[in-house]
Amino acid sequence: MAEPIDFYFDFSSPYGYAASGRIDAIAARHGRDVRWRPILLGAVFKVTGGQPLVAVPMKGDYSRRDFARTARLMGLPFTMPPTFPFASVPHARAFYWIEGQDASKARMFARGVYQLIFGEGRDVTAADLARIAGQLGYDADDLAKGMADPAIKDRLKAEVDTAIARGVFGSPFIFIDDEPFWGSDRLDQIDRWLETGGW
Amino acid sequence: MAEPIDFYFDFSSPYGYAASGRIDAIAARHGRDVRWRPILLGAVFKVTGGQPLVAVPMKGDYSRRDFARTARLMGLPFTMPPTFPFASVPHARAFYWIEGQDASKARMFARGVYQLIFGEGRDVTAADLARIAGQLGYDADDLAKGMADPAIKDRLKAEVDTAIARGVFGSPFIFIDDEPFWGSDRLDQIDRWLETGGW
Repeated sequence: MAEPIDFYFDFSSPYGYAASGRIDAIAARHGRDVRWRPILLGAVFKVTGGQPLVAVPMKGDYSRRDFARTARLMGLPFTMPPTFPFASVPHARAFYWIEGQDASKARMFARGVYQLIFGEGRDVTAADLARIAGQLGYDADDLAKGMADPAIKDRLKAEVDTAIARGVFGSPFIFIDDEPFWGSDRLDQIDRWLETGGW
Repeated sequence: MAEPIDFYFDFSSPYGYAASGRIDAIAARHGRDVRWRPILLGAVFKVTGGQPLVAVPMKGDYSRRDFARTARLMGLPFTMPPTFPFASVPHARAFYWIEGQDASKARMFARGVYQLIFGEGRDVTAADLARIAGQLGYDADDLAKGMADPAIKDRLKAEVDTAIARGVFGSPFIFIDDEPFWGSDRLDQIDRWLETGGW
């Protein structure tokens, strides 16, 4: 089986949420697995000079409209959370701790978190993260200890550094082997690339 | 017949070139005409603080790859011109002068210019513009006088100002009535919007 494709996303990224709904199905259709890799766009932007879309003049207003339009076209519910953008460090650390136990559960966790944030438009708290992890069988105290573990903090930092080194400057950002694709609007290209190996 | 849709683009925009290959056919399928409106992204960026994609760290390298990938997927030849980005003021002025004579010829002119720039990867000179206009039946001296006419200069300026007032911050930028769509990667959404009137 070919290498998994890499799916970089920030939990605070509406387009990451949009892509999360289809990426596994697209990859599976071509016999590929997907490695979900939450990152922190804030850290990326320090290197690239980028800034959150909604903070950019004119582009901000357009983006808010396009987030909803894009997600709904994909058949996903969409509501912006009251606080946006927000710091997604706890979400990402919780993900990597769960991934250390079971990668498939980490993916379910990510889906649950995204659903709460952009599907239901909620500000997600530490208690929400613990509840979603709890539904997957994880103890809240274990999760809290895991999230505070220096090894988990380092893991997240390493993933962000690797992403930047690979050229990731936004979310979602997907690699098929070494071919980079930026944006939920590249999913059809990704599907075709997996089918044809390029054009 | 419903109002034409507005297709804003900069002659120096590879994604504008990509969209130019499909926009008329998509609109026609839904009984709509298209108003082609060349603008100057440089003037837009002065207002928005934007900058040419290729000048942005990391995003620049990705974009060069994505320009070609996107155009080729649409069945268009693609080669970057030696000089990029470039000032597209003459191209846009020539367009509006020809449009004053015949809107359909202006569109043919725009296609010819785009083909030379990104299809063949050429730095387009004033002589090239005159030659393409000449193939459409326009005299080189008339074109030169038209491009120097203050009314044509004002027309281009007015189009840019109107675009900015409508929220245009990139190229291509398309309006279906008042619904904005940014990017050649929104053509499928545009097709669907024209079909359904929204979702």
